[in-house]
Amino acid sequence: MKEGLSDLVSFMLSLHPNSQTSMPISGDICTSCMLCLLMMAISSLVWHCPFQYIWTISRLATRCQRKPLSIWTRAATQSRIKKKATEPLKTLVLVPSLQGSISHTAKRSLHTSQLHRQEVMLTSERYCNEKNLAVNPQGGNTGLVGGSVPVFDEIILSTALMNQIISFDNVSGILICQAGCILENLNQYLEPMDFVMPLDLGAKGSCHIGGNVATNAGGLRLLRYGSLRGTVLGLEVVLADGSILNCLASLRKDNTGYDLKQLFIGSEGTLGIVTAVSILCPRKPHAVNLAFLGCPGFCQVLRTFTVCKGMLGEILSAYEFMDNECMKLVERHLKLTNPVAESPFYVLIETSGSNSTHDEEKLSHFLEHVMGSDLVVDGTLASEDKKIKALWALRERITEALTCDGVVYKYDISLPVEKLYDLVTDMRIRLSTAAKNVVGYGHLGDGNLHLNVTAESYSHSLLDAIEPYVYEWILQYHGSISAEHGLGFKKKHYIHYSKPKEAVLLMQQFKIMLDPKGILNPYKTLPSKAV
Amino acid sequence: MKEGLSDLVSFMLSLHPNSQTSMPISGDICTSCMLCLLMMAISSLVWHCPFQYIWTISRLATRCQRKPLSIWTRAATQSRIKKKATEPLKTLVLVPSLQGSISHTAKRSLHTSQLHRQEVMLTSERYCNEKNLAVNPQGGNTGLVGGSVPVFDEIILSTALMNQIISFDNVSGILICQAGCILENLNQYLEPMDFVMPLDLGAKGSCHIGGNVATNAGGLRLLRYGSLRGTVLGLEVVLADGSILNCLASLRKDNTGYDLKQLFIGSEGTLGIVTAVSILCPRKPHAVNLAFLGCPGFCQVLRTFTVCKGMLGEILSAYEFMDNECMKLVERHLKLTNPVAESPFYVLIETSGSNSTHDEEKLSHFLEHVMGSDLVVDGTLASEDKKIKALWALRERITEALTCDGVVYKYDISLPVEKLYDLVTDMRIRLSTAAKNVVGYGHLGDGNLHLNVTAESYSHSLLDAIEPYVYEWILQYHGSISAEHGLGFKKKHYIHYSKPKEAVLLMQQFKIMLDPKGILNPYKTLPSKAV
Repeated sequence: MKEGLSDLVSFMLSLHPNSQTSMPISGDICTSCMLCLLMMAISSLVWHCPFQYIWTISRLATRCQRKPLSIWTRAATQSRIKKKATEPLKTLVLVPSLQGSISHTAKRSLHTSQLHRQEVMLTSERYCNEKNLAVNPQGGNTGLVGGSVPVFDEIILSTALMNQIISFDNVSGILICQAGCILENLNQYLEPMDFVMPLDLGAKGSCHIGGNVATNAGGLRLLRYGSLRGTVLGLEVVLADGSILNCLASLRKDNTGYDLKQLFIGSEGTLGIVTAVSILCPRKPHAVNLAFLGCPGFCQVLRTFTVCKGMLGEILSAYEFMDNECMKLVERHLKLTNPVAESPFYVLIETSGSNSTHDEEKLSHFLEHVMGSDLVVDGTLASEDKKIKALWALRERITEALTCDGVVYKYDISLPVEKLYDLVTDMRIRLSTAAKNVVGYGHLGDGNLHLNVTAESYSHSLLDAIEPYVYEWILQYHGSISAEHGLGFKKKHYIHYSKPKEAVLLMQQFKIMLDPKGILNPYKTLPSKAV
Repeated sequence: MKEGLSDLVSFMLSLHPNSQTSMPISGDICTSCMLCLLMMAISSLVWHCPFQYIWTISRLATRCQRKPLSIWTRAATQSRIKKKATEPLKTLVLVPSLQGSISHTAKRSLHTSQLHRQEVMLTSERYCNEKNLAVNPQGGNTGLVGGSVPVFDEIILSTALMNQIISFDNVSGILICQAGCILENLNQYLEPMDFVMPLDLGAKGSCHIGGNVATNAGGLRLLRYGSLRGTVLGLEVVLADGSILNCLASLRKDNTGYDLKQLFIGSEGTLGIVTAVSILCPRKPHAVNLAFLGCPGFCQVLRTFTVCKGMLGEILSAYEFMDNECMKLVERHLKLTNPVAESPFYVLIETSGSNSTHDEEKLSHFLEHVMGSDLVVDGTLASEDKKIKALWALRERITEALTCDGVVYKYDISLPVEKLYDLVTDMRIRLSTAAKNVVGYGHLGDGNLHLNVTAESYSHSLLDAIEPYVYEWILQYHGSISAEHGLGFKKKHYIHYSKPKEAVLLMQQFKIMLDPKGILNPYKTLPSKAV
């Protein structure tokens, strides 16, 4: 297959605008035009069965990466090339030699898709006839709802090579970078200048900022710095017709017309492809402290949160909770140690501020208060980096412990805080011995519960016992069936549990308006018909 | 006119669905259905020439205000009444008896509009033929760009009677209220429960929360709590076809489909009418401190801001600046006293936190540092409410002082902070003696400059000297021609100085999709043709 791709890249290079200039093109591609973007896509071409990653070709070296600023202006003038580029691509995707060279697993994937032919119209049938191809934008591919993987035969458009920082202003704290920058790399870039990214999540080591924006990622710092809807100041987006929408402003305030960028934040690549981001970064907190507490009941978890907001106020940066079932799992599967007395619930409180003495004083006043009342049974404090990391691991590694426990049914839910844990209790009673473990943990400060059910093996009857019951439960309390993970491929049909019919219809109108041929991340986010 | 309106209201009441039930209707209207909303509109019917308020009829007592929650469900089922209601309204608007009873000024306004007939197609011609009427949503009518006043013969739809708080959750801090609630009243409601609204602005005593959302109001607390795009959690919006879009969620996280509410935030009533708001309120800070400092130059104002962000961090809640020309104006026209030594620039720094001792300590460390360097020439501190108010007055009353100084040309601009004051200096040189005063002040922390030019009397040549020069200047540095005031009627034609053509075209497509007949706040926000 590598040979086939190499031939194709050579052929596409001959179409490249630079081939008619004096610039050397052999072996080089630029990230500046749609033709090259498509070449990048092919170079990382992978065949998937849904949610299964098979193989990818190593990245091509790019010349333009060394000149990131020039990319944007040139891309705008060269977007017309796209139409030319799609024709040979179509030929490639369908050539038998290529199909013959794909792996066994990939073949099975094609076979699977053939089984579905009568249910869906394949991308190759829908778009290639009109010389168009469906595109599946992909960043770090860390999503949990199948938004970043192709369902049938979409082409993957990877942002991996768009990994350049364009500018950083250390007075305003505004960072402008390309979409493929890895979140952790951005943080590492900012730290020496005394700034941090306004978001932090488990997948930071591989997720891309473009994907974070496209999925409106939440994570651990949302309580403190707010959502991306507030911190993202501008976006550059490639629309379905290949035109570039440049809203890459670096202004905290701009009330000139409708805020178009908001429509692309959280649209999971179905309305446009985020190619660059302008984001407001807060100062790096000089002092970080962590308290890990045991609470006798969920009611006390909530009351502790209220006291905490009052007494810690502006330095509170995380309020996470986990139940004792989570603790047992991390103890059993990961051999971590519970640092406090066994309790029905545990709370992790992080403070971050500019003055460690002040923060420690606030935290100890708060602890005196909650330990003196019936709110907290036992607790431990950490201000050293090592101990802080060890305590965070108890909360952050729950997902890993769950995976060790068996097959996991995952739900990412928003509910009014006072109802948050009732769903877990209810589900535990409902499933009884059909489930191995029913656990609840999450970002309590944001009203965000991660409900997880484990079982020894996959069972359709267990799934039927959970769904749609869990969605109906959420509907009853006006919650969200996806707090931060998005809808992607897996949850798009459940949107009506969280959004009224009128809203879904309007979303479908937006999709049709911005992507009339439906080539952007098809089969994702919205149900194909009104629900 | 009161008699005419009374007849009309009686006639409309006979159309009211409640008139066929056992409910008493005489003298009563409800805020539950579109018919009543239109009756409310008529009851507060005012005739305007552009930007000139003439008169209004006193509010009608409403029964439904005592049952706020029931309004929303009933309104949804009764919105079909609207079509019936528009017919008699049309008759009314055009009946000679009513036209005969309007005031002299109103007649002049009609006359003025007749003069324009050949330039524009009047609402009555465009819409009444199709049994539709153009609507001008109006909250507290405190906008500065003519977004909340009708241009020709639009009907004013006032939100004044929709002033009920629907719910407040004191664990999560989420407030849900109707659009007509006055910002200051909401703050007063929250304060005893230890919460505050996340926004604060000069017009708080009369502006409505619905208008704040519709214009994406910024104000004094944006630096600390972020923009409404982050704090507004949900909206209820009436669309152009009278249908109700209920996105009134009270969840901090909800990634189910596109975030439709964002499109209405800042759309100035051109895409839908905000009728209810769900907003996240922060805890009331227990300690507030203010520092008022004199800086020798704008460069020092910027450096002080950088130091301030590092040393005050999480407690910094406002960083405002004003030039010495502003100070001279408040001294001359309002007899206020400059509390520090005369300096080219003044900075007002507010901190708000949960512990006064800690905050005062942080602030004095910071002051020691900046006074010890060349950044600050002189300064004063305040922690008592009275002194805090007196110091804030110096900054907040600049607008008032400007009005006393003569005719004012106002510009609300976002620029990269380091360029912020260059525009003022440049303009001062450019206008020279043609202007009485050229002053600059604003929310430096948000990169927001209020540039104001005063003159003894209005002069077209002075305006020509300012515009489009000022907009071209802003364009050159990728700033915004309207940081927080919006575009409204006055600035819609300048949108292309801040937004690319593709973005404006897309906005126009959104407008056509959501309001195909163009009945919502026509002649506002977007230019009628592509620019």
